[in-house]
Amino acid sequence: MKPYKKVDEKDLEVLRSFVSEDRIFVNDDIHPDYSHDEMMIYGKRKPEVVIQIKNAQEAAKIMKYASEKNIAVTPRGAGTGLCGGCVPLEGGIVVNTSLMNHILEIDPDTMSVTLEPGVLLMEVQEAVKNAGFLYAPDPGEKSATVGGNVMTNAGGMRAVKYGVTRDYVRGMQVVTPEGEILELGGKVAKNSSGYSLLHLMIGSEGTLGIVTRITMKILPSPKKMTSLLIPFDSLSAALKTVPEIMKLPDVATTIEFMEKEVLDDAQEYLGKEFPNRNYPAYLIVSYSGNSQAQIESMLDRASETAMKNKALDVFLSDTEERQEAIWNARGAFLEAIKNSTTEMDECDVVLNLDKVVEFVEYTRECSKKYHVRIRSFGHAGDGNLHVYICKDDMDDATWTRVVHEVMDGFYAKARELNGQVSGEHGIGHAKKKYLEESVGETQIQLMRKIKQVFDPRFILNPGKIVD
Amino acid sequence: MKPYKKVDEKDLEVLRSFVSEDRIFVNDDIHPDYSHDEMMIYGKRKPEVVIQIKNAQEAAKIMKYASEKNIAVTPRGAGTGLCGGCVPLEGGIVVNTSLMNHILEIDPDTMSVTLEPGVLLMEVQEAVKNAGFLYAPDPGEKSATVGGNVMTNAGGMRAVKYGVTRDYVRGMQVVTPEGEILELGGKVAKNSSGYSLLHLMIGSEGTLGIVTRITMKILPSPKKMTSLLIPFDSLSAALKTVPEIMKLPDVATTIEFMEKEVLDDAQEYLGKEFPNRNYPAYLIVSYSGNSQAQIESMLDRASETAMKNKALDVFLSDTEERQEAIWNARGAFLEAIKNSTTEMDECDVVLNLDKVVEFVEYTRECSKKYHVRIRSFGHAGDGNLHVYICKDDMDDATWTRVVHEVMDGFYAKARELNGQVSGEHGIGHAKKKYLEESVGETQIQLMRKIKQVFDPRFILNPGKIVD
Repeated sequence: MKPYKKVDEKDLEVLRSFVSEDRIFVNDDIHPDYSHDEMMIYGKRKPEVVIQIKNAQEAAKIMKYASEKNIAVTPRGAGTGLCGGCVPLEGGIVVNTSLMNHILEIDPDTMSVTLEPGVLLMEVQEAVKNAGFLYAPDPGEKSATVGGNVMTNAGGMRAVKYGVTRDYVRGMQVVTPEGEILELGGKVAKNSSGYSLLHLMIGSEGTLGIVTRITMKILPSPKKMTSLLIPFDSLSAALKTVPEIMKLPDVATTIEFMEKEVLDDAQEYLGKEFPNRNYPAYLIVSYSGNSQAQIESMLDRASETAMKNKALDVFLSDTEERQEAIWNARGAFLEAIKNSTTEMDECDVVLNLDKVVEFVEYTRECSKKYHVRIRSFGHAGDGNLHVYICKDDMDDATWTRVVHEVMDGFYAKARELNGQVSGEHGIGHAKKKYLEESVGETQIQLMRKIKQVFDPRFILNPGKIVD
Repeated sequence: MKPYKKVDEKDLEVLRSFVSEDRIFVNDDIHPDYSHDEMMIYGKRKPEVVIQIKNAQEAAKIMKYASEKNIAVTPRGAGTGLCGGCVPLEGGIVVNTSLMNHILEIDPDTMSVTLEPGVLLMEVQEAVKNAGFLYAPDPGEKSATVGGNVMTNAGGMRAVKYGVTRDYVRGMQVVTPEGEILELGGKVAKNSSGYSLLHLMIGSEGTLGIVTRITMKILPSPKKMTSLLIPFDSLSAALKTVPEIMKLPDVATTIEFMEKEVLDDAQEYLGKEFPNRNYPAYLIVSYSGNSQAQIESMLDRASETAMKNKALDVFLSDTEERQEAIWNARGAFLEAIKNSTTEMDECDVVLNLDKVVEFVEYTRECSKKYHVRIRSFGHAGDGNLHVYICKDDMDDATWTRVVHEVMDGFYAKARELNGQVSGEHGIGHAKKKYLEESVGETQIQLMRKIKQVFDPRFILNPGKIVD
């Protein structure tokens, strides 16, 4: 591989001919945020130039030029990733899609929404709701872009019932690293027309193409949603209950777990009281449906199952106020933990549902062994944990050693339990080593060659997923 | 590309060392069925040898040897495909997976079933049902293998509510063309760990690897399922009602359409009377749920919507007998049409839901213009049509011309309407031209290069999807 070309004045002149001057930034005009995502620990360097694109044609021109000149290009949405996926490791150009923030169409006749990639999750959820439908994917970070959700195949709170982002993508317009504009899929509800470039693109973290338009399935909106807050005297007891709830005839919309410690962090962060606090651990179990009677029978069955499985109580959250209190707290977990410490690292393993308890108990042992604070929360119904290792007042040298050893241990344990490296945050540059250890050299080689098919010069988002 | 090597006596000796003698067939011991799938028109030639494998290790040995010697290998399940996907165009070896027909595990704790690829759809549906759960994918051909379903990403009757086969695959063991055994995914409910080789493999029609084990999601079994048989005075009126039913708060499990003519064929084929016959066209709309009250409110809403949209009546099919009569007829459509003619060709386009009427009307015009009998049925709720052109007593020369012109017209019309070539039957060798016309040269090139990544010698299922 020859080294990437630095962006010089001549390149800038060409790039300025592609987009209006107010959408191109260099030097001190580049905001420091462009050097990192939400996980500071994976931040590296600033790009040489930031370009805010407005359409696929601009992206295509940039990619054609970068391809010709061998300049590294890193796509970026809202920068809310957690693995350094949008960090411009090789400098070069950052292509920011956040001005491509238009919802182009909500089409009831095909039950689809078509939008630009920079639309925020909260915006599409709101717009689809106002049109009388449901945008089902519900990742925790509502200010992430839909483009980012698609590119990491984000899962979120409602995946138990509704599945992950992948399950909703019907079509995408994508600009390849060589500057071709591809139309993958369409508005159609199903598709078996050759290799699914669409499904290969989903979850590829902006390494195979820059997404410039997305068409996604929407659903009829369920009329009612109610949550149960179920306390347990230990997290293990809570997690052991999850497979039993999964077997009930009604599929829960959401099954989340949380511990007292994380709730305490959230309360402090939000300055708001959480209802029915002071239990050691909780499940939040939600059901949605179209009639009160239907929901009630769902709640009855879940409550009964919980009580049979050592739940200490079952609190119904049927008022908007109570629901909001619970979900606001849940939504603040990441920020609250971040706020409670000096630095942190994160692990997003996904496990077989019956192995979650064992993994969580292992994180506890690590916490004791390494004298490090570890916090976790996550999508219990999907076996997807978010585990945070907190630096607190640990000195830098110890922290560096501890965080590596603990992370190595986490991923080794996940492998031992047949889990996978990432449930929904992706690989970025932070988890490449663990991906390789998990899937092995043959699969990494296949991925590398696939990368090469799309991007022979490795100029698009270099250093992510595979080298 | 150098020509494929013919299998000679020396090769056979080596192949016989891989599997027991009773599972390897040559010459006249090869059943004529191995030269075609369900669509006789796409049959070509017999393989030189058929090997019935029992495990991944055998497949790996065969592929390593074939790869070394440049022998073509075509995987085959039950041979129920409709695009010639399992036809050994280059002779060589057919690897038959139908002895790999064991359900390895139904695991309630992870809500998954793990099985060998040769298990038939009807077998896994039955076994999962007996374990108290639902295997949701429900393609029409119940004697297809699950391996085949996964490799074509089959959709079926219940895709409206439950999605297609792709949405249920969590993990696969696959033998690559070069004889490596890959474990893709696992039992985990979600996964964002690098490029999804799993989702690339799904729908790849046995051209990228031979699947040897599959893990799929299962669901709690809904307690009740009821269907409505809704007659209309024209197919257009029926199809226009579909988007309105899709917008209702309850997602229907199934929305199928049928015409009187196809029903007549099915009645004749089955020798059984269909209930409430003699209307020009019908929708079958099913709902599933866990209580009588819930289902009734679903049926009420659907009935009301249908009557507002010019339905002539609404017949409730709540007895097992009536349900069986409807679904048996529906299940027999393909065979009935096949039985009614001398030869036929098939088109499996998928359209935006609001374009189905226009496409069906176009097929009517073609029928008149070319004086050829055309029959269609399909998955109205998915916009996926199965359209059959029947030769009847047409002379061979006319038939050859007509079938090509009509097919060209169908796919051109589908492109014009932003539809896709195949909803669920795949491309095989029969639809390659239409795939290329539909997705364009850039995407075909990407697919070809992806094929090359997995299969540098193009020995696995050559001549399918891309050349």
